Amino acid sequence: MHLIDVDDIRAAAGLIRGSVVRTPLLAALWGDPDRPLWIKPESLQPIGAFKVRGAFNAIGRLGAAAKSHGVVTYSSGNHAQAVAYASALSGITAHIVMPEETPAIKVDATRRLGAQVVLCAPGQRETVAEELVATTGGVLIPPFDHPDVIAGQGTVGLEIAEDLPDVANVLVPVSGGGLASGVGTAIKALCPAARVFGVEPQLAADTAEGMRLGHRVDWSIEDRNRTLADGLRSQPSELTFAHLQRVLDDALTVTEEQILDAVAELAHRAHLVAEPSGAVALAAYRNVTLPPGPTVVVLSGGNIEPTLLAAALSR
Amino acid sequence: MHLIDVDDIRAAAGLIRGSVVRTPLLAALWGDPDRPLWIKPESLQPIGAFKVRGAFNAIGRLGAAAKSHGVVTYSSGNHAQAVAYASALSGITAHIVMPEETPAIKVDATRRLGAQVVLCAPGQRETVAEELVATTGGVLIPPFDHPDVIAGQGTVGLEIAEDLPDVANVLVPVSGGGLASGVGTAIKALCPAARVFGVEPQLAADTAEGMRLGHRVDWSIEDRNRTLADGLRSQPSELTFAHLQRVLDDALTVTEEQILDAVAELAHRAHLVAEPSGAVALAAYRNVTLPPGPTVVVLSGGNIEPTLLAAALSR
Repeated sequence: MHLIDVDDIRAAAGLIRGSVVRTPLLAALWGDPDRPLWIKPESLQPIGAFKVRGAFNAIGRLGAAAKSHGVVTYSSGNHAQAVAYASALSGITAHIVMPEETPAIKVDATRRLGAQVVLCAPGQRETVAEELVATTGGVLIPPFDHPDVIAGQGTVGLEIAEDLPDVANVLVPVSGGGLASGVGTAIKALCPAARVFGVEPQLAADTAEGMRLGHRVDWSIEDRNRTLADGLRSQPSELTFAHLQRVLDDALTVTEEQILDAVAELAHRAHLVAEPSGAVALAAYRNVTLPPGPTVVVLSGGNIEPTLLAAALSR
Repeated sequence: MHLIDVDDIRAAAGLIRGSVVRTPLLAALWGDPDRPLWIKPESLQPIGAFKVRGAFNAIGRLGAAAKSHGVVTYSSGNHAQAVAYASALSGITAHIVMPEETPAIKVDATRRLGAQVVLCAPGQRETVAEELVATTGGVLIPPFDHPDVIAGQGTVGLEIAEDLPDVANVLVPVSGGGLASGVGTAIKALCPAARVFGVEPQLAADTAEGMRLGHRVDWSIEDRNRTLADGLRSQPSELTFAHLQRVLDDALTVTEEQILDAVAELAHRAHLVAEPSGAVALAAYRNVTLPPGPTVVVLSGGNIEPTLLAAALSR
């Protein structure tokens, strides 16, 4: 299996520059003095999440012939809007398969970005996407299981290394593992003394278990769906798990209560709205004893339901 | 009266680089298509507001002898924390006069940043600050009535002009007018076709009235205190009003309801927490018909009371 390296991430950075926000690394004055806290706010990207990085890189690397057939993907979350957005700005067609139960607000947002949304029965989205690839000739851009997507997400790590070369700890959410694979690859190459920790909800901690056992494990989707961190219900592919085994020092887990506390803390102290999935890294910072030194938490996205945000801030 | 120019602002940018966040200009996909919306999120600065720019510039321009005596200021708001923070990082002493009725949370935050807080009776803060200047030999850094403070705040405008040279409209909150004076000076020099609008709450619209009449007007502090935008209850000095007359195309006003709606919109759509004072520019964007073209709203700060934020998001 071919794993990406930091040169792939550097190439991605060159390709997506100007299409994504070069997010600042924010010093949080209210962190633990022994572990000065820095926040990487990917919630500030267009569509509100880091996913645009991988989408722009994967689309940018297509040749003209491939682009003429457009792209296909499946997602009910931020990847859908990221591919729709990157496709629109790249002038190509995007077909996006979403489960029928996807909230209308997300379907509408994806359509407004110019994508063709194809609704499907639960559990059928990968099959339907493959059919669309066959009929349209489009290229599949999976949410994480692709080296170009991983390299694009890795630009987050490249920027952290540029802005804080003496970083000691990097905490990054893990779901399918594309972000953690890319960030970890960049950090281990550029800041070899730094530790990289993946963070998962306890209720969807397949990667933490897999890291302990030394191989991928499958948790049922019913189990993973228990967490309110709806962006962290996927699990790594063979490709991303191989990256994670190479670059993660450990995988940490946090409770649902800790996640909601972190959503509130980010709003009140950092003035940033995080979705639950985006707040797990701060939750781990607050609840796990880390080695001392400058610590970065990656705030991966901000697309939280208004009612859930209001509830988190009213507790 | 000597007004600052864009060279003063360029010098300030050089002086404060590395001490403040070079905030990104964020494209808001959900704006009016005829007036593409961009947000300048100064809420991401350390202490959560643009005020650090003026504080670092004013302190940075002091000579070694002056620095040895420290600085003095008066403020119950973001300027207090900005001066405390900039003083601590500059290794100098700060005495900060705050009214006795200042919420304990703000007094404590200012003390935690290392400043000497001096509480005073209501209406006495300028007098007490002058006494401290006399006894300590420190330099007074007023919240807005000083060319170095205005030039520091103007770096916000310099960055807008760098990032969006074809900007058509810039909307900026007005209270004492330091921010609007500096931003307007930068924009008028670098983007001469752009219009610059100050924005005030209707309940503290002394500048809008003054602009109409062609001279400063005084509103009673009781009147100005009616707005929940607690950062917009000051009014310009002769110095800032002269800048505003030169650089503002108009002064717009918004209602309290419109301000709270803008706080909610910024949280839900831009994933940014704004204090009411920081949301007035978006409120004007939403409720006043502006000329077409790319439009920047300056989100000046994010220090909102948790209960007020929860209330704004639960409406």
